[in-house]
Amino acid sequence: MPDTRFYRNNGPFSLDFLAEFLHLPLEQCPDPSLQITDVAPLNGATSTQLACYHNTKYQKDLQRTQAGACIVAKDHLNHAPAHLPVLVSKMPYRDFARLLSLFYKEKKEVTLKLHPTAQVSSNSKVGAGCVIGPYVFIGDGVTIGENTHIGPYTMVDDDCVIGKNCCLEDHVSLTHSILGDNVTIKPGARIGQRGFGFDMDAQGHIPVPQLGRVIIGDNVDIGANTTIDRGSNADTEIHAGARIDNQVQIAHNVIIGEHSVLVAQVGIAGSTCLGQFVIAAGQVGIAGHLKIGDGARLAAKSGIMRNIEAGGTVGGSPAFEIKEHFKQVATLAKLAKTKGK
Amino acid sequence: MPDTRFYRNNGPFSLDFLAEFLHLPLEQCPDPSLQITDVAPLNGATSTQLACYHNTKYQKDLQRTQAGACIVAKDHLNHAPAHLPVLVSKMPYRDFARLLSLFYKEKKEVTLKLHPTAQVSSNSKVGAGCVIGPYVFIGDGVTIGENTHIGPYTMVDDDCVIGKNCCLEDHVSLTHSILGDNVTIKPGARIGQRGFGFDMDAQGHIPVPQLGRVIIGDNVDIGANTTIDRGSNADTEIHAGARIDNQVQIAHNVIIGEHSVLVAQVGIAGSTCLGQFVIAAGQVGIAGHLKIGDGARLAAKSGIMRNIEAGGTVGGSPAFEIKEHFKQVATLAKLAKTKGK
Amino acid sequence: MPDTRFYRNNGPFSLDFLAEFLHLPLEQCPDPSLQITDVAPLNGATSTQLACYHNTKYQKDLQRTQAGACIVAKDHLNHAPAHLPVLVSKMPYRDFARLLSLFYKEKKEVTLKLHPTAQVSSNSKVGAGCVIGPYVFIGDGVTIGENTHIGPYTMVDDDCVIGKNCCLEDHVSLTHSILGDNVTIKPGARIGQRGFGFDMDAQGHIPVPQLGRVIIGDNVDIGANTTIDRGSNADTEIHAGARIDNQVQIAHNVIIGEHSVLVAQVGIAGSTCLGQFVIAAGQVGIAGHLKIGDGARLAAKSGIMRNIEAGGTVGGSPAFEIKEHFKQVATLAKLAKTKGK
Repeated sequence: MPDTRFYRNNGPFSLDFLAEFLHLPLEQCPDPSLQITDVAPLNGATSTQLACYHNTKYQKDLQRTQAGACIVAKDHLNHAPAHLPVLVSKMPYRDFARLLSLFYKEKKEVTLKLHPTAQVSSNSKVGAGCVIGPYVFIGDGVTIGENTHIGPYTMVDDDCVIGKNCCLEDHVSLTHSILGDNVTIKPGARIGQRGFGFDMDAQGHIPVPQLGRVIIGDNVDIGANTTIDRGSNADTEIHAGARIDNQVQIAHNVIIGEHSVLVAQVGIAGSTCLGQFVIAAGQVGIAGHLKIGDGARLAAKSGIMRNIEAGGTVGGSPAFEIKEHFKQVATLAKLAKTKGK
Repeated sequence: MPDTRFYRNNGPFSLDFLAEFLHLPLEQCPDPSLQITDVAPLNGATSTQLACYHNTKYQKDLQRTQAGACIVAKDHLNHAPAHLPVLVSKMPYRDFARLLSLFYKEKKEVTLKLHPTAQVSSNSKVGAGCVIGPYVFIGDGVTIGENTHIGPYTMVDDDCVIGKNCCLEDHVSLTHSILGDNVTIKPGARIGQRGFGFDMDAQGHIPVPQLGRVIIGDNVDIGANTTIDRGSNADTEIHAGARIDNQVQIAHNVIIGEHSVLVAQVGIAGSTCLGQFVIAAGQVGIAGHLKIGDGARLAAKSGIMRNIEAGGTVGGSPAFEIKEHFKQVATLAKLAKTKGK
Repeated sequence: MPDTRFYRNNGPFSLDFLAEFLHLPLEQCPDPSLQITDVAPLNGATSTQLACYHNTKYQKDLQRTQAGACIVAKDHLNHAPAHLPVLVSKMPYRDFARLLSLFYKEKKEVTLKLHPTAQVSSNSKVGAGCVIGPYVFIGDGVTIGENTHIGPYTMVDDDCVIGKNCCLEDHVSLTHSILGDNVTIKPGARIGQRGFGFDMDAQGHIPVPQLGRVIIGDNVDIGANTTIDRGSNADTEIHAGARIDNQVQIAHNVIIGEHSVLVAQVGIAGSTCLGQFVIAAGQVGIAGHLKIGDGARLAAKSGIMRNIEAGGTVGGSPAFEIKEHFKQVATLAKLAKTKGK
């Protein structure tokens, strides 16, 4: 299914090989030697392709699928037609991801190590195996670990530190920042610029010097055109494993705890602190100087104006506990109908 | 009115010439030979300039205008003062647009065809009449049709296909994408990067390979700093004639139907499918895996959490049918006043 | 506290020197000759560091601080422990900002004036003391005043005018624009591109020529990845002293009055006019063709659908006067609880 102009298919693999690779039982399968040529969505798969059923929204697609086999969760085994060979998984989507990595890799072969148009300051250190793309600019005193890729037009400003196995894609701005290992940054992200700090006044506004940094832990993923301002007198911190989507805005001195997830277009105002495994869904806004506890879940478009305790789930703007929020929505809908009569 | 440093004025033209050019009747006009030197807004136009009345918010401006003539809809003819020559149009704004195209074109003469700082891989094909700007980078195996412009700092990654008469402005990122003809992309748009796909887990999150593409039809317009992720196992598709404003976020596997309009800062989560002629106003958010029917209209700031049927109009967050939404707003306002007494 | 890899510390300074520098009385201080080595937040400051108390949220931190001294407002003097030397200020945060500017400046010494990779058209004028960075592209007929910095990958398109002492950081797009003095533009801002103008039609949409400019006054600050479209037949105007945060969207023909503040992810639709000293908090959306009066305050996430009078404060979506809005929120919360019983 993937376009072989962009990706290379390493298949085919037999069904029993795949079952062994994934450590999954293969059921309803008369012919385990069937050669699987590709992966595909349920509704487009053919008899030599393997699909995955990981969302019950697609139950009808599962029942009609022409796939040669399918990864299915044990609990949903009864959704599958009896003639469909199934790989029974506790975590179907994760096993499907492993399968995708087996079948495909990026076609692009990296042969260039330092593109002739790149500018790298002579007093910066670039580790072994790094790839520095076209028109890259790396300033003075920069340190970059091994096997890191820097894409076209990306600027790494003076004295930044980047770990190993990182990937900064194209058109990224990096300044006043310290990055761990395995950090990936998508195109157009802006990291480390001055924050929106000024003292307001009836005669105008006076800028406040912004003297902090951005500290990014290992395995962080940062989305396209996302903006992360550096700290003012403290630092802005993104802890290990955090995943940040496109067009997210993170103001100065914000702290994002480990493995927290920020979906697209979330905005977080200055000095707010998120714990670990927090999930902020799309377009959530969080006011400044708040604390969001570990594992809190913020529904899409929520407006967070107060602290949220660990494990809390909230929705609405201003946000309420999620069941309260749903009750409010239902109550108002009912009242409007009643009054309209 | 337009600054002749940036635009060239091809006028003047006589009123009767303009009436003929637009195929419109000229009324209330004692002197059809009047030379019109320029176009201008109602409240700034002088006696040799032509204005357009296309929004009844500006009725007072129409009554006071000093313009030499004005394009007016037949239905609003009675809004115009009796001494004002009028061109009577069924579609005033569209006729005004045609007039603007007659009076003005960009001053810039394109003389450079391939800027000396640009890098184009020798095994890519660039059509006749293309203009490749400063610092452009075009990777391997790319195909670009005739008369396409690629602006400064734009990256076209390996194996992308771009049709004819396209314009990719400056600082654009394009990867894993296939574009039709007459596609325009404004500065800083990011197209084709990996989507926000990972499997969440209490120990951390595992990235899922993103193996799809972005397919963009003819006559699509994409705004500045907009982000469009490539598909995961299917493709992300933007169908012909769609118009997408600045800072819009489109996640993996989304489909945007023909001639749909997405206003600034709209966000659409993964695998959601919009029909044709859908209008999503500013800052709308749409959850994942939904279907939005043909011709649906989503009011500004709506939060769409469920499927919307063809022709539906909704507002609010979560969104309700628009009259229900207005009734809810009015009901709550009234209740709050009553309870406050 | 600031990382001396990125910033240079000019200290230490004695407490009495600092009191004189700031013109502030020094109280509760047994040893005015104490050498202050640095500035720091209340909760991290050591006995030779100076902190600032400007937000009563941090009262506990003030009481426990180990700082050698602290800037405190006269009204909050009683919040400070008796053993803590205090500089008594009418505007603590502003005085702290002045102190930061005394203690620190950017380490970076600008020695390059015109980077060898930059492209500047021979018929453009660049003032004395300007710094033109790597890969900058400056088109024909551009005028740039004295001491202006243009960062890496920034494009200044034909015939733009930039004043003196401006700073355009990296990856900025500037076209069809006239800038005053002391304007700062952060990375990835897009200024002057075509607006989202077209005439909608059941057969498709026809683009309307966009023939205006962007006019930016003195002392304006524009955030990272913000987009400001040029006018259609009028201009888009950003008046002197306005401060615009990251990822703000400003459509064609919008006017932003002097010293107005737009926080991150605000979106303003076409032809809307803001007065002076308006504050739009994060993620506010403002519909087109509206007037927002001087000094109006728009709460975070507000949806503004009608004109707002001078001095008005509003919240909610659609927005109501702020006390009405709060009353609505409280009324609905109460009703939902009552109905749930």
